[in-house]
Amino acid sequence: MKQLSKVALDIQPSATLRVDALFKQMRQNGLDVVSFGTGEPDFDTPENIKQAAIKAIVEGKTKYTQASGMPELRKAAADRLRADCNIEYTPEQIVVASGAKHSIFAALCCVLNQGDEVILPAPYWVTYAESIRMAGGVAKIVHASEESDFKITKEQLESAVSEKTKMLILNNPSNPTGMVYSEIELEELCDVCVKHDLYILSDEIYYRFVYDGREFISVAALGDDVKERTILVNGVSKTYAMTGWRIGYTACNLNLANVMGNFLSHSTSAPSTISQIAAVQALCDTQDSVDEMCRIFKERRDYIVGRIASTPGVSCRTPQGAFYIMLNIEQLIGTSLDGRTIESSDDFALLFLEKGLVATVSCSAFGCENFVRLTYAASMETIKTGMDRLEEFVCKISRK
Amino acid sequence: MKQLSKVALDIQPSATLRVDALFKQMRQNGLDVVSFGTGEPDFDTPENIKQAAIKAIVEGKTKYTQASGMPELRKAAADRLRADCNIEYTPEQIVVASGAKHSIFAALCCVLNQGDEVILPAPYWVTYAESIRMAGGVAKIVHASEESDFKITKEQLESAVSEKTKMLILNNPSNPTGMVYSEIELEELCDVCVKHDLYILSDEIYYRFVYDGREFISVAALGDDVKERTILVNGVSKTYAMTGWRIGYTACNLNLANVMGNFLSHSTSAPSTISQIAAVQALCDTQDSVDEMCRIFKERRDYIVGRIASTPGVSCRTPQGAFYIMLNIEQLIGTSLDGRTIESSDDFALLFLEKGLVATVSCSAFGCENFVRLTYAASMETIKTGMDRLEEFVCKISRK
Repeated sequence: MKQLSKVALDIQPSATLRVDALFKQMRQNGLDVVSFGTGEPDFDTPENIKQAAIKAIVEGKTKYTQASGMPELRKAAADRLRADCNIEYTPEQIVVASGAKHSIFAALCCVLNQGDEVILPAPYWVTYAESIRMAGGVAKIVHASEESDFKITKEQLESAVSEKTKMLILNNPSNPTGMVYSEIELEELCDVCVKHDLYILSDEIYYRFVYDGREFISVAALGDDVKERTILVNGVSKTYAMTGWRIGYTACNLNLANVMGNFLSHSTSAPSTISQIAAVQALCDTQDSVDEMCRIFKERRDYIVGRIASTPGVSCRTPQGAFYIMLNIEQLIGTSLDGRTIESSDDFALLFLEKGLVATVSCSAFGCENFVRLTYAASMETIKTGMDRLEEFVCKISRK
Repeated sequence: MKQLSKVALDIQPSATLRVDALFKQMRQNGLDVVSFGTGEPDFDTPENIKQAAIKAIVEGKTKYTQASGMPELRKAAADRLRADCNIEYTPEQIVVASGAKHSIFAALCCVLNQGDEVILPAPYWVTYAESIRMAGGVAKIVHASEESDFKITKEQLESAVSEKTKMLILNNPSNPTGMVYSEIELEELCDVCVKHDLYILSDEIYYRFVYDGREFISVAALGDDVKERTILVNGVSKTYAMTGWRIGYTACNLNLANVMGNFLSHSTSAPSTISQIAAVQALCDTQDSVDEMCRIFKERRDYIVGRIASTPGVSCRTPQGAFYIMLNIEQLIGTSLDGRTIESSDDFALLFLEKGLVATVSCSAFGCENFVRLTYAASMETIKTGMDRLEEFVCKISRK
């Protein structure tokens, strides 16, 4: 049979799959494994949101909505951005999609032409790299070091710009690093983008999880010239523990919003009506549950950072947002256990799962070597067990 | 700012939008307008399905699922295809997406390379034409006449094949024509596809709505060589009145299913978990509501066909499936009302809405002139009112 799409054939299955498949197999086999793998809040969706969805089902609100999303949801998102980020968008500038991942894909498809370059700071969430390619673009990776808190500088950005550059992707707060750009840092990067006429895709899905009294600044709040070229990505998945409901949205200039609406109208239509109604409730009703989740995440972060500090052979920077930690395992490269040598973060993640019974994600998939990603979107009990096992595991291999 | 994606800029907003916007405006203005426009069952989602969704919400089943869909849903779809269409697929060959429209888009993106040709019989559902182009393909339209019941012949198909042809799209039963291909007709078309090594995208979303004791035959049931190259598209939207839940699926060979899973894993992830659980219930539980809907649709079809037969100036073939009718308005071309001449089906649709207070869809958007599409996915009361108004409108313009 004729060859399938070359672009599609090149798509890499999620790099976490191998470890995740092994994790599930081990659990099925009755082994007591714990996971630091999935970037999914362990909380249940708040009750007020669930009740709104149930009411929608009972009342038969189960029909098609407009392709760009229900007017009520587009307005609710605009209101929320105004309240939380001090940015002014009309509902018509908001385009709803089936999760923030879908928003990113749709935005890339609507902005990029074949061969356009997109600057992607590493460590990056692996989907950015894949979806840039799926949309016909070319990712230009800029590596941010641990010393700079995994943030790129204006000099790095400037030197990565070419004639073909069309966009910068920012993820702030960042998955996988947990780092948060300051206002000055963002302004410096945005100046470069304005100067070179670049779009800025700013994925701010973790914006409500920022710790230590730090202020979150949305790129779109930095001035009209920046806002006009910004595609702000957000959604309800992380903020309201609504991962399975699949509601994301973008805010951008009206022209692009209309093009995205056309794109969605022929590729998916709007997401689940019930999920949209639940999202309206999440965005408009009390935000108490968000503050509570944020408080708990901070507690967990403090605990996990403390435990890492007292564990030999590993280290980490203290993340300022989201719920991820970059565990530096550089000192463990070259050590071995039961005759198997750790030569990479992939090796570490696999061996730690097999022998230490803890699932983590190797950051090689995120364009970054010698690190694994831990998440603290897991219960304190899981975290304690996991950190005990890390200590034990590291002590064993350190003795080699 | 730099130009957006050329492909995205070329996407046509749904052709029904202008009429639909006017319809909504008129209704807002308090006018008593009725709609034959939307292809959406007017029934509520059956109670057993709604209860399954509510249970899922209450139990907190609101987390991520695997990108290709929950194993339970993939199995339920495979079981349903076996029971209803006598085709054998493993759950791994089923890929779930956010509605059948999304399944079609994903399949096209995973099969087509730039410039590949896709044979598209007209009249066609407008999204096929747009999504072929969005996936980099080129639609090669083959026009089916009313005399052939809007079905293309093997000779037409054969003469449309070129070196670049990669796929045939079939929609059976058809939106907008309501026609159903017989087993012999399908076999003849599939022979051509096998001979020229073409993929067959067979959209069978209306398969449960077939009337007059006709048997529905799925393309994939015509033999292994056909099945291997078939991408069967189906979903729960029409069969179970679940349009707003957004669950579609494909069944295809395992290689393509895996590629589609990768595509979805980086472009959307799986659809709403709650909707997936509702879809499992729909596919596995009693099918009584489907039979009842089918009975009611047939009643409405018979009524509407009878009324058209007794209305001067218009005519129609009796549709054999789905819930659409192609209203032939050729005899009305050149007539006028209040100084406005009907020169096209677009003109008719607009004038019938403005003066007759009934919304229909002009088939020019479906690659077919001198027809408008009516749907009988509307209550009998709406249908009666609409047909009364058609009669009145046609009499008025006929007198000119």
